[in-house]
Amino acid sequence: MAPCWKRVNYFLGYLRIQQTTGKRFVSEIASRASPSGKNSAFSRLTAEDVSYLKDVVSSRCVVEEKEALEPFNTDWMRKYRGTSSLVLKPNSTEQVSQILQYCNNKKLAVVPQGGNTGLVGGSVPVFDEIILNLSNMNRIRNFDEKSGIVTCEGGIVLEALSNFVSERGYTFPLDLGAKGSCQIGGNLATNAGGTRFLRYGSLHGSTLGLEVVLANGKVLHMLSTLRKDNTGYHIPHIFIGSEGTLGVITAASICCPKKCRSVHTALLGVDSFDKVTELLVRCKDEVGEILSAFEFMDRNAVELATSLLSHVRDPFPKSFPFYVLIETAGSNEKHDEEKLEKFLENCYSEDFISDAVLAQDQSQMNQLWTLRESMPEAVSRSGKSIFKYDLSIPLEHFYGLVTEMRSRLAQHACHVVSWGHIGDCNLHLNISSSEEAYESLSKLIEPYVYEWTRAHGGSISAEHGIGRMKSKYLPISKDKSTLELMKQMKQLLDPVGILNPYKVFSQEA
Amino acid sequence: MAPCWKRVNYFLGYLRIQQTTGKRFVSEIASRASPSGKNSAFSRLTAEDVSYLKDVVSSRCVVEEKEALEPFNTDWMRKYRGTSSLVLKPNSTEQVSQILQYCNNKKLAVVPQGGNTGLVGGSVPVFDEIILNLSNMNRIRNFDEKSGIVTCEGGIVLEALSNFVSERGYTFPLDLGAKGSCQIGGNLATNAGGTRFLRYGSLHGSTLGLEVVLANGKVLHMLSTLRKDNTGYHIPHIFIGSEGTLGVITAASICCPKKCRSVHTALLGVDSFDKVTELLVRCKDEVGEILSAFEFMDRNAVELATSLLSHVRDPFPKSFPFYVLIETAGSNEKHDEEKLEKFLENCYSEDFISDAVLAQDQSQMNQLWTLRESMPEAVSRSGKSIFKYDLSIPLEHFYGLVTEMRSRLAQHACHVVSWGHIGDCNLHLNISSSEEAYESLSKLIEPYVYEWTRAHGGSISAEHGIGRMKSKYLPISKDKSTLELMKQMKQLLDPVGILNPYKVFSQEA
Repeated sequence: MAPCWKRVNYFLGYLRIQQTTGKRFVSEIASRASPSGKNSAFSRLTAEDVSYLKDVVSSRCVVEEKEALEPFNTDWMRKYRGTSSLVLKPNSTEQVSQILQYCNNKKLAVVPQGGNTGLVGGSVPVFDEIILNLSNMNRIRNFDEKSGIVTCEGGIVLEALSNFVSERGYTFPLDLGAKGSCQIGGNLATNAGGTRFLRYGSLHGSTLGLEVVLANGKVLHMLSTLRKDNTGYHIPHIFIGSEGTLGVITAASICCPKKCRSVHTALLGVDSFDKVTELLVRCKDEVGEILSAFEFMDRNAVELATSLLSHVRDPFPKSFPFYVLIETAGSNEKHDEEKLEKFLENCYSEDFISDAVLAQDQSQMNQLWTLRESMPEAVSRSGKSIFKYDLSIPLEHFYGLVTEMRSRLAQHACHVVSWGHIGDCNLHLNISSSEEAYESLSKLIEPYVYEWTRAHGGSISAEHGIGRMKSKYLPISKDKSTLELMKQMKQLLDPVGILNPYKVFSQEA
Repeated sequence: MAPCWKRVNYFLGYLRIQQTTGKRFVSEIASRASPSGKNSAFSRLTAEDVSYLKDVVSSRCVVEEKEALEPFNTDWMRKYRGTSSLVLKPNSTEQVSQILQYCNNKKLAVVPQGGNTGLVGGSVPVFDEIILNLSNMNRIRNFDEKSGIVTCEGGIVLEALSNFVSERGYTFPLDLGAKGSCQIGGNLATNAGGTRFLRYGSLHGSTLGLEVVLANGKVLHMLSTLRKDNTGYHIPHIFIGSEGTLGVITAASICCPKKCRSVHTALLGVDSFDKVTELLVRCKDEVGEILSAFEFMDRNAVELATSLLSHVRDPFPKSFPFYVLIETAGSNEKHDEEKLEKFLENCYSEDFISDAVLAQDQSQMNQLWTLRESMPEAVSRSGKSIFKYDLSIPLEHFYGLVTEMRSRLAQHACHVVSWGHIGDCNLHLNISSSEEAYESLSKLIEPYVYEWTRAHGGSISAEHGIGRMKSKYLPISKDKSTLELMKQMKQLLDPVGILNPYKVFSQEA
């Protein structure tokens, strides 16, 4: 029999909860994107072009049939939809280089595409751009057992890569909900964050080298596998977070930390937001070096998930205004357990937490993570109009925006729920309502959310990027000189502008 | 009375060792740099220029007297010497902007200078470039007690900054021997590594934002204080490690981890290099999350230090071929002690280490670190001709180069010693000899050291940068396309080429 949840104040019977299936969900809202006009400088794809490009990658690595093109043309939220008639799935860096060289010469626009799990419309065409899908470039080129440095191609699925290093005693420093579909090249291109960011930091820190193909087909061989290398400018960082607009990442070297043999997961019920922030500060202090996740959910989000998804349960007998999921990972089971339990006991006795459960086995751990990871699915089922925001907000203002939005939208029937990587000040604010409410809500929400965020020292994109969704708000995020330099960099690296056009920079900006 | 060293196999009486003074040492070798010709495109400084620039910063922030100019014109190894007649010490970003705008218009070359502690001649003029010294810009602009994020000006001395955050319960993620003189702006410009790199990673990971003045005087306001911010290209990273050739870093936001209340230091004697590497792998596995330093020294280096410096002692009764200094930092004294002791006991019983001492108080910790940090001073005292190399070499070849150089130089009277941050594969190879031996040794050492390093998958500059010393070897470190892109970036950001000329790129390259 599976063990009981270990509770800090009292014990609760074991709860049988299904695991998440890991399947993608797709929201049902119709495409509402209305892009401005197509750039007339681009050429229209001819039969001759298709024939040349087919020769480069071989016919079986091409998708042309209308129905088969659909998933490549549509983002996973079904919010953005392009009309590309050609998907190319190159097998090698050389092929990527040949494709881009040809497209650059012929002025054919290209969308680099990984797992197509982005949430800002960055990985699908706006019009008829050729889709350069990296999924066939999914090999691991090298792994060093002593250092944990892995060199792999851009198209490998994050979960496959993560499993590969895990089986060899290392932890991949990046983990996120879409791991079963997203690819490391796309993760790097969007500087993905996720749940392990708190412990292992950003991809700028763990990436040692990249192989990148420029718009003109030139290959930058920068696949260093050294933790320290100060020979010349640190060029790879320009491509991390450039959302496929400056070059195509065909391979990467990433440094993985040793896998921790002891992992503990706890869920905490908290009765005020001030206590949540205080908890974070104390947790970093007392659990310090073993803290590997500190995730936040509000009551509204948890109630939405438990009411709409049969496999999701709240392990507490009563609900709380706020929930915090803590994970620790360390090298010594006994020490880690002692630290975490002591921390929870202290918090409980000092009234920082109202209740807490500590998972007793892998299955209970999965159940707690299921609650946290089911949030996007719950929101998608709660309404036909969904507004998703991925924001960075300083701790002192973090929950203010959620309260503010609830009050602002009080007259409308909608769900305003939030969760996020609060350990990194990353808030995921979600608002859902009926299809009819879209227009009226839309005006009340945007640009208000972005302006509020900027006014409170935050960022309008913590981890999802700018893509197509936020390009018109980029100017409120960057000062004029920095924006100008971004444009100069684009001009330098992709003078014809074939790489992921209409993304990052708005056509009006 | 101070406690005894705690030894894993047996106890040894307390050793009274003076602490390092923290003073800079200066080697006595004469300037041997022989730069190629001055770029005739630059203007010569006129009385009118001096008058204008003096007005910008005020007279008391200018150095013009020959003798007073000397320390600004000379690097700390006294290997490189310029002939600048003007040092400007601006007080604000606005002043830096005005200076650069003027110099750019007038084609006056400028060397940005921090603490001038670099080892590759990057922070002193080659000819008569104006020195833009940042030391007056040493304010802390903001510190967030809850997140540990500090925003400070570029000219603050690393030790002052480190003390500031330490007093507030945080650890500055960068630490290095020159901390008493070097400045954070210079550290960022050279992407400094140091001893904490193993635990806290590179500055690319911990830097959240920069304020940079471009060659034309434009200010890039990129001082984000958010851990996650994916709005647009990650421009600050271009300047990290660009060695003052792309812009002047006037301020930075850096994320500091919580200070660990429990710190332990141990010195290990090891009888083969294979065991050193095995020890590293095991240490990462068993001590894992609390490992904060793993430093290496060979017997020759330790013997040089103990024989030449009266305040340095080897705590062991006999010498060993290799020494490893381990530091742990964690949140729980008892746990950390148990982990480290258990690890050392295991290693000892399995014959991975021959002996070990564990520091029992702060003074003994300092003594162990003194041994490690006295290495550069010992080498400087051991001869008049000194060759210093800062290399990254994969673990399996790490010590091969040292052995190789000893055999190559066997016929010559010289010291070949090595130490380094082996936890990050960073070797500091040092060769010293008499003044007369310089020419003959020089030919045997260079470019051999660099070629060997490249042939074994290493980097010719792990943390010191390229500067003036290694510019002619840059082409062996970067592929042609990447080098070309570096030059295009330089052209884009500093089209007149006034910023730190003759550095990074060789005039021949």
